[in-house]
Amino acid sequence: MTLVTLPGQEWVDLVGPISGVELVVWDLDGVPDRADEITVVVPPYIGAGARLGALAHVPNLELVQLLTAGYDDVQAVLPDGVRLANATGVHDASTAELAVALTLASLRDLPDFVAAQRERTWLPTSFHQALADKRVLVLGYGAIGRAIAARLTPFEVQVSAVASRARAGDELVRSVHGVDELPDLLPRQDVVIAIVPLSEHTRGLVDDAFLAALPDGALVVNVARGGVVDTDALVRHASAGRIRAALDVTDPEPLPRDHPLWTTPGVLITPHVGGASTAFMPRAARLLQEQLGAYAAGRPLRNLV
Amino acid sequence: MTLVTLPGQEWVDLVGPISGVELVVWDLDGVPDRADEITVVVPPYIGAGARLGALAHVPNLELVQLLTAGYDDVQAVLPDGVRLANATGVHDASTAELAVALTLASLRDLPDFVAAQRERTWLPTSFHQALADKRVLVLGYGAIGRAIAARLTPFEVQVSAVASRARAGDELVRSVHGVDELPDLLPRQDVVIAIVPLSEHTRGLVDDAFLAALPDGALVVNVARGGVVDTDALVRHASAGRIRAALDVTDPEPLPRDHPLWTTPGVLITPHVGGASTAFMPRAARLLQEQLGAYAAGRPLRNLV
Repeated sequence: MTLVTLPGQEWVDLVGPISGVELVVWDLDGVPDRADEITVVVPPYIGAGARLGALAHVPNLELVQLLTAGYDDVQAVLPDGVRLANATGVHDASTAELAVALTLASLRDLPDFVAAQRERTWLPTSFHQALADKRVLVLGYGAIGRAIAARLTPFEVQVSAVASRARAGDELVRSVHGVDELPDLLPRQDVVIAIVPLSEHTRGLVDDAFLAALPDGALVVNVARGGVVDTDALVRHASAGRIRAALDVTDPEPLPRDHPLWTTPGVLITPHVGGASTAFMPRAARLLQEQLGAYAAGRPLRNLV
Repeated sequence: MTLVTLPGQEWVDLVGPISGVELVVWDLDGVPDRADEITVVVPPYIGAGARLGALAHVPNLELVQLLTAGYDDVQAVLPDGVRLANATGVHDASTAELAVALTLASLRDLPDFVAAQRERTWLPTSFHQALADKRVLVLGYGAIGRAIAARLTPFEVQVSAVASRARAGDELVRSVHGVDELPDLLPRQDVVIAIVPLSEHTRGLVDDAFLAALPDGALVVNVARGGVVDTDALVRHASAGRIRAALDVTDPEPLPRDHPLWTTPGVLITPHVGGASTAFMPRAARLLQEQLGAYAAGRPLRNLV
């Protein structure tokens, strides 16, 4: 039997039973029972960072299976020879859904209506931007980008996609443009939804020149990482009334209380909740079932990093 | 030449030219030029109600083409023999879009994040309801109901539909349930989106018994008419924390400042803006082009009421 720790009883209930696997609870707090029998650890989804030192209590650790897509902090403390797998894929539905939610909420001015409701005020009829008829660029066309495009398609929009290199399209977009085509593409977009991974190539990709190339009134949605957008440039363009933004991620993050982004006109902010929804646990449980079953049976693992 | 009045120059620019039709501007304020030559009037989209008496200045009126779906107020003042057509269809995309926007905003708690943004507060990570995995009932399965179902489908949901009578399904739903099946259906829904026309059969359809049949935590979205929901019953169920709601229409409407619905927990209110978006004008212009061209050519008209 492979002894695997899961971060809570709700995970044991949801994931088990798995043939050849014994599931026990450990949330990386203190020393686990039967520490020397444990070979696989699944750290908690939230707050694992500060507790990763506890992995040192597990002398025969072979695999750490994360519940997050990000893995930098774990990789930094992991002993040599311990394999690491992330949870790529489990947040696709949730993040794509939030991207569309932010797009619709910003275009249709839902924040204004929320504010009016607090004032018990029925605003007079006025016209708001629709998503229908908009030209939407999905910036980053991996699994989440495709999930966003799939959700946008029935809204009577024109969806384009950009990836690091141009390639053939799929059932959702005629072709995938390369990032080098952005100067031609940006002046023709009404909405840009960023879902690129953060790397040396994408840090500050949405900078002053990018924003200046967008038409007046364009909406920038960021569900990628805060560093993809040059915050100072965005504050300038939004303050000038040229650009609107809906951001689930910011740079810096968390956003300090005195940061000008909080009150920049036309900017809607959610606190990095793209993956934090009820869509997460069922999808994470399916990943754990597959991974732990594969591990116990000696089959190849997914999502190794 | 058929002389047609449109409610503003922007409509003339967007709609014309049409063969056999002369388009002039009249917003129902005062007496129009060449009043006895006018045979078709298109009243303004907003505020026409108070000005309908001006139709008496048009002695040879044959057709009133509305820009709204509702027509009760016009029908009441129209001379015998004048035909009336409404604008059914032009709001489908906009209203369906708002239905999905309200559903996502409510489930993902966007009002809480808007409030936190005003306080410059980055809320700690917590889990919110996703649309993914939800069972969604579209209550009313005409053109807008189908447009809602089409937009929901990629979100990894289970969509069901209810119409006045059971019938075969389409590419979106396996079958359309009859309204008599609601007692069986409601306990299995997470979200109900109401888009039934208001009639003697649907007034108060979402009443205490309807709400009581829904599971705890269910979301009721109303983009139909306020009268479809029993407001007092909704306030009771929402105040008890059992039911959430997102309402673009209310009863009474506009909602008076002292109405308890404004501050009922879990209730999101927008001021009847389902159709009031940029999606409206291009679709209304296409309808006017078709209708006025058909009228001038003696072809049958759509949307006669």
